[in-house]
Amino acid sequence: MERDLGNEKLINERFRLSGRREGQEDSIVSVGKASFGGGNISNIAGPCTIEDYDQTLEIAKAVKEAGADILRGGAFKPRTSPYSFQGLGKEGIDILYSVGKEVGIPIVSELTTLKYLDIFIEKVDMIQVGSKNMSNFELLKELGKIDKPILLKRGLYATYEEWLSSAEYILYNGNPNVILCERGIRTFETYTRNTLDILAVPVMKRLTHLPIIIDPSHSGGKWWLVEAGAKAGIAAGADGLMIEVHTDPDKAICDGSQSLIPERYKKLLEELKIR
Amino acid sequence: MERDLGNEKLINERFRLSGRREGQEDSIVSVGKASFGGGNISNIAGPCTIEDYDQTLEIAKAVKEAGADILRGGAFKPRTSPYSFQGLGKEGIDILYSVGKEVGIPIVSELTTLKYLDIFIEKVDMIQVGSKNMSNFELLKELGKIDKPILLKRGLYATYEEWLSSAEYILYNGNPNVILCERGIRTFETYTRNTLDILAVPVMKRLTHLPIIIDPSHSGGKWWLVEAGAKAGIAAGADGLMIEVHTDPDKAICDGSQSLIPERYKKLLEELKIR
Amino acid sequence: MERDLGNEKLINERFRLSGRREGQEDSIVSVGKASFGGGNISNIAGPCTIEDYDQTLEIAKAVKEAGADILRGGAFKPRTSPYSFQGLGKEGIDILYSVGKEVGIPIVSELTTLKYLDIFIEKVDMIQVGSKNMSNFELLKELGKIDKPILLKRGLYATYEEWLSSAEYILYNGNPNVILCERGIRTFETYTRNTLDILAVPVMKRLTHLPIIIDPSHSGGKWWLVEAGAKAGIAAGADGLMIEVHTDPDKAICDGSQSLIPERYKKLLEELKIR
Amino acid sequence: MERDLGNEKLINERFRLSGRREGQEDSIVSVGKASFGGGNISNIAGPCTIEDYDQTLEIAKAVKEAGADILRGGAFKPRTSPYSFQGLGKEGIDILYSVGKEVGIPIVSELTTLKYLDIFIEKVDMIQVGSKNMSNFELLKELGKIDKPILLKRGLYATYEEWLSSAEYILYNGNPNVILCERGIRTFETYTRNTLDILAVPVMKRLTHLPIIIDPSHSGGKWWLVEAGAKAGIAAGADGLMIEVHTDPDKAICDGSQSLIPERYKKLLEELKIR
Repeated sequence: MERDLGNEKLINERFRLSGRREGQEDSIVSVGKASFGGGNISNIAGPCTIEDYDQTLEIAKAVKEAGADILRGGAFKPRTSPYSFQGLGKEGIDILYSVGKEVGIPIVSELTTLKYLDIFIEKVDMIQVGSKNMSNFELLKELGKIDKPILLKRGLYATYEEWLSSAEYILYNGNPNVILCERGIRTFETYTRNTLDILAVPVMKRLTHLPIIIDPSHSGGKWWLVEAGAKAGIAAGADGLMIEVHTDPDKAICDGSQSLIPERYKKLLEELKIR
Repeated sequence: MERDLGNEKLINERFRLSGRREGQEDSIVSVGKASFGGGNISNIAGPCTIEDYDQTLEIAKAVKEAGADILRGGAFKPRTSPYSFQGLGKEGIDILYSVGKEVGIPIVSELTTLKYLDIFIEKVDMIQVGSKNMSNFELLKELGKIDKPILLKRGLYATYEEWLSSAEYILYNGNPNVILCERGIRTFETYTRNTLDILAVPVMKRLTHLPIIIDPSHSGGKWWLVEAGAKAGIAAGADGLMIEVHTDPDKAICDGSQSLIPERYKKLLEELKIR
Repeated sequence: MERDLGNEKLINERFRLSGRREGQEDSIVSVGKASFGGGNISNIAGPCTIEDYDQTLEIAKAVKEAGADILRGGAFKPRTSPYSFQGLGKEGIDILYSVGKEVGIPIVSELTTLKYLDIFIEKVDMIQVGSKNMSNFELLKELGKIDKPILLKRGLYATYEEWLSSAEYILYNGNPNVILCERGIRTFETYTRNTLDILAVPVMKRLTHLPIIIDPSHSGGKWWLVEAGAKAGIAAGADGLMIEVHTDPDKAICDGSQSLIPERYKKLLEELKIR
Repeated sequence: MERDLGNEKLINERFRLSGRREGQEDSIVSVGKASFGGGNISNIAGPCTIEDYDQTLEIAKAVKEAGADILRGGAFKPRTSPYSFQGLGKEGIDILYSVGKEVGIPIVSELTTLKYLDIFIEKVDMIQVGSKNMSNFELLKELGKIDKPILLKRGLYATYEEWLSSAEYILYNGNPNVILCERGIRTFETYTRNTLDILAVPVMKRLTHLPIIIDPSHSGGKWWLVEAGAKAGIAAGADGLMIEVHTDPDKAICDGSQSLIPERYKKLLEELKIR
């Protein structure tokens, strides 16, 4: 009865490039010196949104010291309401870029429209496609025409099949450097922001050779759930973690309640032995 | 405990333009001679995807004769898989435009990227934002800068609050001509393609002054469910219907199984007395 | 790909008694003078919970005058919390029974445990299985051994296949008198109490010969949604309605916010022409 | 905006006995020599359903040798269809009891109706309430009047609040020995049998002092997902695991596809260092 997404026929039809054929090894995707897949575990950390230079610098230093390999920071924020803070935009990318250079850490940020693609190609080391744009196929097609690593978040409504099909759009257009990111799906349970679908890790590991990481911050939406989510993710076989870290969560413009302070983040990586 | 989305405070915060204030009348949105809202019910019909000129013409004549006010037809199809038919693209819009002129019926089609906005502004009478792009805020912002009617489909994962916020993006940027379209949400029930959320009609009627229509074709995903969905929609207070009609559903490239033949469509409108 | 629940093979395997075979007519289930199915539409109304004799009598008279055919009232309430009011129990059934006799209207109430089955057999005209007990197969088996009509509510998590299988349990054990009741399913949308799955009506009409009614009160959880839900239900082909009516909703012990006052209920039945 | 289920007011209202008050330590629930909570991790394993004596004995020996502390086995199976195998019933309990004595391992089995409560009290060391009966409050009330440990599975539709309220029913009626079991919830994703809600572990650890275990077999519904689910569960802080093990999964009457063979089960416990 089950539709076995991993069978050869379906791979040949729908997952020609992303599907894992029998015996096929993990793909390894590198961002600067950090690698994901094939036994390599890397860490992405930083604030939800870039607020200003000093603060980004402070956080960048802290997460690097704690063991992060890549700095994250939002500049273009796809906010539900037009009256919410929409991010610093291009200025935010400039700040992130400068801080990355100063601290010596590669950067990742979310692209929401092709209009800014050139800026991202120039300044960002990995381009994030957020959950709201996972099915924005026009965006995916263009990201397939470059060779920069793409961090493809799962849509909060997306089946495994749809998610992998979105990755296939990027690969089909020529870019093999895709990292999947499970960040929670929408269910009836609203006490947590989303429901972390931990089995997505072994499922995707079977269906595809692409690396997969976990974002425990958006999954639970509460800082005190990050640790358990991160540990579960690594235990389940994830190739990395993306965690929101802020030096002053209470004053964060966005998502402070789900951000760790650097000390906790460092301790977590130590316990996980993935520093 | 309930978050009353219709209260004045929330309207002032989040739904400044789309929220219905006490005693506020329905907005009426017109497309050619067809009107939606304020007691006006209009009908949109046509094929899922535009296949060729002759076939589009045949269907256009049939749906107009049956009572449709607006012709629909997809040219840019946001398909889950890159290997599925992606639509005829610009050629499809040209066909739809010519057929619309020949038959004398306004046309609506889905826009998936800003790249083709100019073509849509020139040739299409109403621009559809599909469910996969309901949270593509960059697209919504630009559609707010024109004055063409926008048909905003609900995302299959979207709460009422998120849906109305997407409408607010368009209104906030200057375009008041938004029609909402309920087309089914994703739930645990997979026998139907989606679950038609019929109470979305009275809920949105209370929360906003914007018109709302029902798409019973995508909701159920089966032609034999269209009639019940359409009747329920009108009974619940919808301002119109969008229904997929095809003269040869078995040979339709896309979504034939949920398309009505013109005879059934005509009979449905007669029974509903909305021809 | 679709699992066609209505095909002959599946009927022979799983829905031997409840499945509708080709050309098979509607079953008609009668409760007193009221009938459901085969073109017959009947109305069930009353308070969520029985509070006392006078108040039940007042509501019973009002709903009968408004057009209701059957009086509902909860005596054993399956409440989420042990600290919530659990219903009047046997005393509640006695009140309902006496009021029913006095007013001359059949009664329906929910049974939550076999312990009280004898009382229900003696005093109640139709036995309701609530959504929380739809998969309580031990209860269903015993209800299959009597011949009293059973009102089987859909579990808020139940697929069509599971719901119909629960009906099959009753039929298989010998009782053909089952009426299905759609009362909303649990989805990600929490603004409404549940999501009324209106397409359940045409789906179940196709899959089974059993009658199906709609409970718009529990579906939306707000009195101002009852009218639209009821109208949609009848338009979609439902064989009846179950609606919570209370003469003083603000003081109702339970579910007052989703109850209609008798005047509105009467007007609704008039507009629907199903008095 | 968030409803903080762990605040003192809500504890005093709804979770008087099950809620964890500030600084309150874990409750420890013991079954034979096995303990759950307060740092104690125990293992439950065995077949989905009891098939016959020899086969149950073979599995019991194998799981005990592998490191299991408690033997599971279904005798009363709440099956969706009345035409599916319903379990061996009382005979199944007798087999499980005899095997448990012979092998020297406590046993757990699911109770679906009060009719057999006496048998379970006499012969079973822990009574399981399955997901389909989590809201069968009449059953819960009676289980609160005994002192045998109760394994309370989460309903596949149940919020944390509803789940904990069901535990409260048992505690309120006098039985403090409740162990919670997360076994996956129903979501839109159907590739896995259910969606393992891994964050349920840290959430419930915060809200209540009761132990919580993970059932990775029912969560994913595929044997090759059990390992990742089990490891994630322990990493997230679970107090134990319940895993389906069968010596001949291909011939198992029920759920063979999600059962581990004893060798894999043993290896898993070794890797987790929880033998």
